[in-house]
Amino acid sequence: MPSLHQTLRRAGLLLAASVLAAGGSSPILADAPSPMAPAVTPVYSLSPIGWVRKAAGKTWIEIEPRYQSALLGVDELSSLWVLYWFDRNDTPEKRAVLQVHPRSNPENPLRGVFATRSPFRPNLIALSQVKLLAVRGNRIEIEAIDAYADTPVLDLKPY
Amino acid sequence: MPSLHQTLRRAGLLLAASVLAAGGSSPILADAPSPMAPAVTPVYSLSPIGWVRKAAGKTWIEIEPRYQSALLGVDELSSLWVLYWFDRNDTPEKRAVLQVHPRSNPENPLRGVFATRSPFRPNLIALSQVKLLAVRGNRIEIEAIDAYADTPVLDLKPY
Repeated sequence: MPSLHQTLRRAGLLLAASVLAAGGSSPILADAPSPMAPAVTPVYSLSPIGWVRKAAGKTWIEIEPRYQSALLGVDELSSLWVLYWFDRNDTPEKRAVLQVHPRSNPENPLRGVFATRSPFRPNLIALSQVKLLAVRGNRIEIEAIDAYADTPVLDLKPY
Repeated sequence: MPSLHQTLRRAGLLLAASVLAAGGSSPILADAPSPMAPAVTPVYSLSPIGWVRKAAGKTWIEIEPRYQSALLGVDELSSLWVLYWFDRNDTPEKRAVLQVHPRSNPENPLRGVFATRSPFRPNLIALSQVKLLAVRGNRIEIEAIDAYADTPVLDLKPY
């Protein structure tokens, strides 16, 4: 005897089923992979190329010394894209959140995470534009960044 | 008796050492991790949330059905950031390239990959802005994207 949840899922009403299961108020979670998805989902691996550092009123990105030569020419730029990892949300539960109330305000209508900059998303990549102050060795001094101290940095690109 | 390469490295002249080792013309490669880096480098994992598709003069992003509910509200946007994976370069050798001649033109002076949008970089994340045409189910129709067909898509964010 299928449950209401199973019946709704079979009818393709996954979203409605999830809302019911969650009591209508919790974030919508990702379901198990669809039977139509490839049997083996590719997995790609990333490692930090550096870290956000904050101390004494200054903010900088500390590049791992082995990547320092990849900075050649960065000092000629005035702004950078910084891609970093929302490492505090790297749990299966948080990575399964697919809908949120933007800015965690329940008065904002639910939105899919791909329509927001929520730090809850399947792949925890954050994107911020920063203004460069100086590059000194493996240290990129920046004006500010909307990331916690010691956040892992994944990539830098010219703005 | 230290080699010239070792002597240069000890003097902090890693870049010069690599250029010499490479005969002065090949791309600069990442060195082994610095002894000052953490003993264990964190590794984060990513999986595609969709794929770039191109056929019959159209371009779209096909979202994995299990992530479709994360699109709620995307249809209200006119442009999106698409983050995708340079999957053709996912080899240790290509991910070790740290300097390139931009646009593969040897007349362009060498630049660190973080000062360029080169598809060779330690973490193979690409960033493109795209114009939305329509969202139909799990299919996001877009004007164009500078990515090969069937490229894995990692994330979408509002522009």
